[in-house]
Amino acid sequence: MSTEGPTPKKMKKIDESGDLEESRDFDAETQKALEEIDGCQNEIDALNEKASEEILKVEQKYNKLRKPFFEKRNEIIKKIPNFWVTAFANHPQVSALLDEEEEECLHYMTQLEVEEFEDIKSGYRIKFHFSKNPYFSNDVLTKEFHLGTSDPKSESTKISWSADMNLVKSARSRQEKMKQGRKRGLDVKSFFLWFEDHEDPSQDDIAEVIKDDMWPNPLQYFLVPDIEVENGVEEEEE
Amino acid sequence: MSTEGPTPKKMKKIDESGDLEESRDFDAETQKALEEIDGCQNEIDALNEKASEEILKVEQKYNKLRKPFFEKRNEIIKKIPNFWVTAFANHPQVSALLDEEEEECLHYMTQLEVEEFEDIKSGYRIKFHFSKNPYFSNDVLTKEFHLGTSDPKSESTKISWSADMNLVKSARSRQEKMKQGRKRGLDVKSFFLWFEDHEDPSQDDIAEVIKDDMWPNPLQYFLVPDIEVENGVEEEEE
Repeated sequence: MSTEGPTPKKMKKIDESGDLEESRDFDAETQKALEEIDGCQNEIDALNEKASEEILKVEQKYNKLRKPFFEKRNEIIKKIPNFWVTAFANHPQVSALLDEEEEECLHYMTQLEVEEFEDIKSGYRIKFHFSKNPYFSNDVLTKEFHLGTSDPKSESTKISWSADMNLVKSARSRQEKMKQGRKRGLDVKSFFLWFEDHEDPSQDDIAEVIKDDMWPNPLQYFLVPDIEVENGVEEEEE
Repeated sequence: MSTEGPTPKKMKKIDESGDLEESRDFDAETQKALEEIDGCQNEIDALNEKASEEILKVEQKYNKLRKPFFEKRNEIIKKIPNFWVTAFANHPQVSALLDEEEEECLHYMTQLEVEEFEDIKSGYRIKFHFSKNPYFSNDVLTKEFHLGTSDPKSESTKISWSADMNLVKSARSRQEKMKQGRKRGLDVKSFFLWFEDHEDPSQDDIAEVIKDDMWPNPLQYFLVPDIEVENGVEEEEE
């Protein structure tokens, strides 16, 4: 995968030979001084690049150090029924995406994982693990972002829907109805349409919210004051 | 100076005793799991804080390593007449601030310095060094930003203007004229009004442009294609 390195400030480059040919005619002394300044700039640029590399190494080191705690947390979370669907349904932006039937489906979600790629800058993937369920046969649904190039891309697992259980199809038909009805222009709520949407991978707000807000601390969204929960997801369970 | 540390993601805090009293009544097993998750979160938070500290240390280290090159660069720049006024006059944002007479005054500027405070987050200062000049008696004019608190402040050197040379006064009178004339609502161009302006220190665009764009690489603004310079500052010199 090609990635973009740290981008130090650009400068009007003095030509290969080190002359300042393209600029005004300077006297010899000024010309010499300008070349010396350019030399300083090159040293500064090299230090900037080294600083970026070291910071990246620190970030990578701490990603590794955090990993076992995220894994341990995931194991504990599995013991709590409906942890993720509750956290999703309580999250302001994520809940706005959840259609009622989709929320039913997410009751089968057992685990969330967010992995930054090794070099951090080039992208990340979000994995949704599911137990055996009536909706699809996949164990894991992954949405993956490749952002390291000038042409960012995302891709996601092809979902093997069970007969008559295709929630993307039903979201599309809701979408069609909306277009014909009075709610034209409104976006249809759908987690699975988001999952399959790859239009603007570098601006995927929901993915970013899951990565930067939900994943770092889901407990705050699982734990909400009683009063909110009573009107929330808890009631809908059988 | 009090400073704000890195702010890790906040979580709905479980009370001091470690109980989850404020949330719903959970069965004993879930309660235990939630406390274990909270324990993981605390470990993750501690790692986040350590990561921020290490990154800060890297930044401080490279600030120190870059410093001698910036100092050397400043010494070389002194050999080039009108380096800074030329760079200022060629910079899109900074030049927009320069009144004609102010530009004359900046011909006496010999040195620019930008210093981040040791802990980086808490602020920075910009120093404008001047040679003996007909406008004021100060050698150095400093504008300093203290941004580490919830109440950011800036301050600047009191300028000892020579008789009838006060450029702040003339900027103010231009301002008055503008208010009465047809150009109402337009900001008056003035480097020295900016220098004395402390209204919104955390949003001082000009200071940030000097710190983050001019200071890292002034050569690119000193060196401009001939055609632009011919209509620019060079012609105005005697």
